[in-house]
Amino acid sequence: MSVGILGAGQLGRMLAQAGISLGLDCVFLDPAEAPCAAVLGKHLRAEFDDLAALDALASQSEAVTLEFENVPVASLEHLAGQATLRPGAKSLACAQDRGEEKALFDSLGIATPDYRLVATEAELATAVEAVGLPAVLKTRRFGYDGKGQSVLRSADDVAAAWQAVGGQPSILEAFVPFRREVSMVAVRAADGDMRFYPLAENVHRDGILHTSTPRTGDPLTEAAEAAARAVAESLEHVGVLAFEFFDRDGELVANEIAPRVHNSGHWTQDGAVCSQFENHMRAVIGLPLGDTRQIAPCMMINIIGQAVPVPALAAIPGACVHSYAKAPRPGRKVGHVNLVTAAADELTQSSARVHALLT
Amino acid sequence: MSVGILGAGQLGRMLAQAGISLGLDCVFLDPAEAPCAAVLGKHLRAEFDDLAALDALASQSEAVTLEFENVPVASLEHLAGQATLRPGAKSLACAQDRGEEKALFDSLGIATPDYRLVATEAELATAVEAVGLPAVLKTRRFGYDGKGQSVLRSADDVAAAWQAVGGQPSILEAFVPFRREVSMVAVRAADGDMRFYPLAENVHRDGILHTSTPRTGDPLTEAAEAAARAVAESLEHVGVLAFEFFDRDGELVANEIAPRVHNSGHWTQDGAVCSQFENHMRAVIGLPLGDTRQIAPCMMINIIGQAVPVPALAAIPGACVHSYAKAPRPGRKVGHVNLVTAAADELTQSSARVHALLT
Repeated sequence: MSVGILGAGQLGRMLAQAGISLGLDCVFLDPAEAPCAAVLGKHLRAEFDDLAALDALASQSEAVTLEFENVPVASLEHLAGQATLRPGAKSLACAQDRGEEKALFDSLGIATPDYRLVATEAELATAVEAVGLPAVLKTRRFGYDGKGQSVLRSADDVAAAWQAVGGQPSILEAFVPFRREVSMVAVRAADGDMRFYPLAENVHRDGILHTSTPRTGDPLTEAAEAAARAVAESLEHVGVLAFEFFDRDGELVANEIAPRVHNSGHWTQDGAVCSQFENHMRAVIGLPLGDTRQIAPCMMINIIGQAVPVPALAAIPGACVHSYAKAPRPGRKVGHVNLVTAAADELTQSSARVHALLT
Repeated sequence: MSVGILGAGQLGRMLAQAGISLGLDCVFLDPAEAPCAAVLGKHLRAEFDDLAALDALASQSEAVTLEFENVPVASLEHLAGQATLRPGAKSLACAQDRGEEKALFDSLGIATPDYRLVATEAELATAVEAVGLPAVLKTRRFGYDGKGQSVLRSADDVAAAWQAVGGQPSILEAFVPFRREVSMVAVRAADGDMRFYPLAENVHRDGILHTSTPRTGDPLTEAAEAAARAVAESLEHVGVLAFEFFDRDGELVANEIAPRVHNSGHWTQDGAVCSQFENHMRAVIGLPLGDTRQIAPCMMINIIGQAVPVPALAAIPGACVHSYAKAPRPGRKVGHVNLVTAAADELTQSSARVHALLT
């Protein structure tokens, strides 16, 4: 059986890797010349809006999915007519627009930071007064890993912030004084069955995820699951859905969703019975979902902007190295390490050794 | 970095799958038209004694290894001159000949069943008298999964047994009244570092491995590790080495070794920190070895001679399905299931459900 994947970056690579065990082949559509997933399947090199390439992808696949969300919604609508498409265009459209996303959260009673949509610099100035400072200005579309964002600390920052987001339709969000950032990685099958991984605690650095640590039994688990369920059901989402939250004094405040496997779920490759990648593939091809429980103390550490120091990492107890076989560039995710140990205190020692290797 | 692998069956497939995380590419040499590992790398289709193909494999690989032991020793000797070859010809030569293998065990003081080498039917008759009955006649070379074996229960069986092994140089072994069969999967690095997985308890059916269950803390662990260490060091083995034993009233009796990843180590994919496949690849390319500890209650069940019932297996709690994407044939291993659970009693329930799906 063959699965078509829009995008052939590291998420596609790890989806294909998980699919091997299920006997699946992958076909990737990606405009890059040699994206890192391409070694694990067939690569159709074309833009995401190339209708002939989309047709080829559909004709070669029993089901089509995506590994990142900046695919045109029109491309998904085109695919939906001729292939089993999971998730569907609805999930993508919501995740692509912070305005729509917030409106969905509002409609479902999910708490968000105070926010205003802004389309002009004048609206931004008004929004700053309404929301207060500090606040974060984010483009409504095409932002990720902290790109397309600007923090406003005083009213004098309005012009610079507006310039920073390129004068695009944006959203101003009140700064949430959070205790920590957490995420819920959930997976929903076509028949509505849902499974939830333990809540993960995330640490960002320079706007990019740095570490994720699963917290089985976290007191916010139930609330996070309820929010993820409400969103997934509302979007009729099929596949993995990741939901990032702020923990504001023990209360969840929604940040954003991703309609795909997520960096904060990478620990599941080595620390859960069934990984997010396998569960996504299971959902896409209509298999029953797998067990999402954590089986050992573990944490994930990203490797960003430097060559993956494989030999040094491999020497660290409990280190499961995941290289994406990508050339390093500043700010680029090139791999991650999952630390899996028999005892929680080993995590501390091993993570210190990993951190010492990272620039 | 590229690793050359002699053989492209399911073991090669799973080696390549593990290698993905380390950023490794694989090149396979295999005479089959479309062996199941070929989708995960480059496939050189040629016989194992094709010198030009061996040269091509060596020139395209930073290191060469093997996934099964019926490769001509001369091919390995040819490769050794031009490539980093792990394991070396010495390991292969020993594992290919039950006579040499037993002689090695004897020289290291490792207990074996009482045995005699036989080259003629007359020698077999004499050996039966010396060893007693019941006894097992095995060809010295090219036997696996119970093939090339014959059980003798009375002196009248001599002629039939000799015919059953094709009149080839063979070994007659006294039947060991064993309590259970166990195996030690070990891995040795080029620098001599060794790691050992927990002892696995194996159940065979019709001469083929059916289930393996790791027994962390088994009282025979230390003795099994010592035997595996002695053999690996004597052979200057690099990579995974599997050692099968009989447990005769709490005493280990050596059965045989395999100079490669082994079916009784498949559980490590989902139940150990670092799998046997990753550890083999680490050893082959000179990385430090990974953590061999068991992280959860688990067991492995082989799927033999029938299509892998993926949807039904996927519905079983804790089931990690591994399909080799091979067409089913009687007696052919086409996949396995690793059951990984949070609690040991779940294993019993889940394994009963798996067994019910197997013919």
